[in-house]
Amino acid sequence: MTGLPPTIERVIDSFSSFPGIGKKTAQRLALHVMKADKETILQFARSLTDAREKIIYCQLCHNYSENDVCHICSDPLRDESVICVVEEPADIILFEKAGYKGFYHVLGGALSPLDGIGPEDLNVESLIGRLDRVKEIIIATNMNIEGDTTALYLSKMLVDRHIKITRLARGVPVGGHLEFVDEATLTRSLSERVLIRDE
Amino acid sequence: MTGLPPTIERVIDSFSSFPGIGKKTAQRLALHVMKADKETILQFARSLTDAREKIIYCQLCHNYSENDVCHICSDPLRDESVICVVEEPADIILFEKAGYKGFYHVLGGALSPLDGIGPEDLNVESLIGRLDRVKEIIIATNMNIEGDTTALYLSKMLVDRHIKITRLARGVPVGGHLEFVDEATLTRSLSERVLIRDE
Repeated sequence: MTGLPPTIERVIDSFSSFPGIGKKTAQRLALHVMKADKETILQFARSLTDAREKIIYCQLCHNYSENDVCHICSDPLRDESVICVVEEPADIILFEKAGYKGFYHVLGGALSPLDGIGPEDLNVESLIGRLDRVKEIIIATNMNIEGDTTALYLSKMLVDRHIKITRLARGVPVGGHLEFVDEATLTRSLSERVLIRDE
Repeated sequence: MTGLPPTIERVIDSFSSFPGIGKKTAQRLALHVMKADKETILQFARSLTDAREKIIYCQLCHNYSENDVCHICSDPLRDESVICVVEEPADIILFEKAGYKGFYHVLGGALSPLDGIGPEDLNVESLIGRLDRVKEIIIATNMNIEGDTTALYLSKMLVDRHIKITRLARGVPVGGHLEFVDEATLTRSLSERVLIRDE
């Protein structure tokens, strides 16, 4: 019992169910709902409903889309010779900010035998069907065991195609102090060091 | 541009407009909206709409309510001899958790001459109309200048009524280390010290 009407309690409970939102924060957000401009909140409610009722997966890249083919896949100015393979739609946000101009392919996860996730659970089949004019595939799965396993699987599967396959560089983060870098990253960063000047 | 459809961008923007929610968190919440159970999200949207379309202010205490009189004011088991005066409905949540069993009165803010907020902007008039069977008024406004000013104003206004007027105790927080308590709190805590054993 919070002393607030059940309708507001329901809003608090809904907010609480979001990842990283605790009970206190949920209360604060729900009380903001009550104080904010009414039309803004009704518009928020409509956008939530729209997001769940109108959004489908793009038939080509499996990113979220309002149409059968998403606005990235249907953009004629994009570089059709490169496909960046990511695990989740969220990853696309980062690449768009980084200025990437090629196409994407969302796997919908990564291989994880322990969790029973095999190639048939991922959008791998449809990637094969998109390779006609592709010259390079950038594998941008996460830098963990599942992501590495998926990268290895994809590169083996594409071995007899004449397509360049690359993986994102691993190393010391930009702005990072060497002191705080873990051993595995430093080892990788050392073995994959980049030439600045020859001789 | 995030590479996501405009419908999802609108959800991200809506979440961003909440207090304490940054762009990254908003993205995470919006992507949770896409992954969570569809019916849960539609229910969330409905609860938001309900909260703004059905909730009114209680005619007696000005707390949020689904009816003309809120469920606290219409509870016959509550102690009608005490009214706890708070600034905002959010404060009621805390008192309910603390086990308080009297009634409430929500002022809707605190006096602040600098911000042009005078007694006529607060629910003061309606408090006067509720004092018939009241024996004690607990002033639980915030412990800052505006809250103190409001407490002083209320106690002066009620000076010719035979009602006990109290203010929440100020002092060292429970579990608090003296080392970290500010001077003003310690001074107050010292002058309002509580007797444990006499002689």
